[in-house]
Amino acid sequence: MDNLLELLVERIGEKRAEHSIRVMDTAVKLASHYSSDINKARIAGALHDCAKYRDKSYLLKRASDFGIILDKTMIINYQLIHGPLGAKVAEDEFGIEDEEILDAIRYHTTGRENMSLLDKIVYMADYIEPSRNFSGVELARQLAFKDLDESLIYAMNNTILDLIKTNKLIHLDTIKARNYLVSKKLYSSLNL
Amino acid sequence: MDNLLELLVERIGEKRAEHSIRVMDTAVKLASHYSSDINKARIAGALHDCAKYRDKSYLLKRASDFGIILDKTMIINYQLIHGPLGAKVAEDEFGIEDEEILDAIRYHTTGRENMSLLDKIVYMADYIEPSRNFSGVELARQLAFKDLDESLIYAMNNTILDLIKTNKLIHLDTIKARNYLVSKKLYSSLNL
Repeated sequence: MDNLLELLVERIGEKRAEHSIRVMDTAVKLASHYSSDINKARIAGALHDCAKYRDKSYLLKRASDFGIILDKTMIINYQLIHGPLGAKVAEDEFGIEDEEILDAIRYHTTGRENMSLLDKIVYMADYIEPSRNFSGVELARQLAFKDLDESLIYAMNNTILDLIKTNKLIHLDTIKARNYLVSKKLYSSLNL
Repeated sequence: MDNLLELLVERIGEKRAEHSIRVMDTAVKLASHYSSDINKARIAGALHDCAKYRDKSYLLKRASDFGIILDKTMIINYQLIHGPLGAKVAEDEFGIEDEEILDAIRYHTTGRENMSLLDKIVYMADYIEPSRNFSGVELARQLAFKDLDESLIYAMNNTILDLIKTNKLIHLDTIKARNYLVSKKLYSSLNL
């Protein structure tokens, strides 16, 4: 783990590595709370931003080197690329082979339809880690430990509202993730 | 046209037919403003709700009879079915063969990626027809005659916000429609 964090600082800088450690700690707490695999949460939390490079052209070059096919939204909102690229870098540079960890890294920004428990833990840990300081974060923190799916719907709704306010594209995976969770709640409330 | 409106009243009732006539009139104005085919706008406006039946089981039965495959969002938000079903009914019962008109009926509630001018006209006519009375409708009316794409982004943003507020599913076609229009504006502002 120490080696992994050292390499992380080297790749994305100290500030982003500090955020990663906070996400790692929060992911471990959530995994413990929901009886999920703590070691996987630790690694996925630590590495979720392992490809969040500052330099746009380097980000694009690496994505191209790995043969990642960018969808229309990622071409414009290129910051989204660090998710799928992160999964490749975690495998290639950090030696991670576990598909569940790689998926949690891949989808930590957009979410996806039918998210795994680890996906959800990393997504929410990134959203609520202690230094996050936006309006509504306290409610998100409470929800995350009370009803993980509800906290994801809350976080995704806020994300969609922000994207609308700032006139940005909305990634289809975020809508698919939210629709899936909203449908699940609806069906469970109908006892289906 | 008289026969068509008579048949429409018979199929969906007087109140919805009156709304349809207002949409038809608004669509004609928009078509004239944007030098689009006025006759197509008239027919698509008049028939956009031709399958908006009150009875849910009848709606589902007819959709099934036409072999319409319902996506996940339509299964839950069954009101959305009247779009694709409307295109089938317009063809089958009203004898409409023009694909552009049928598409404008099909996508008048969700929108779609890369909407045609007629799609846009019918979508906005339905949104701003004179009896519409929600907060923001005046701005939508002004935008529709000033910048049709901007008015669609405005209408779709409002629709997405409403769906979030009421905890409903968001149809992917609405996101695709909005993303397409937002990207187009972005590219044109960059002079690409």
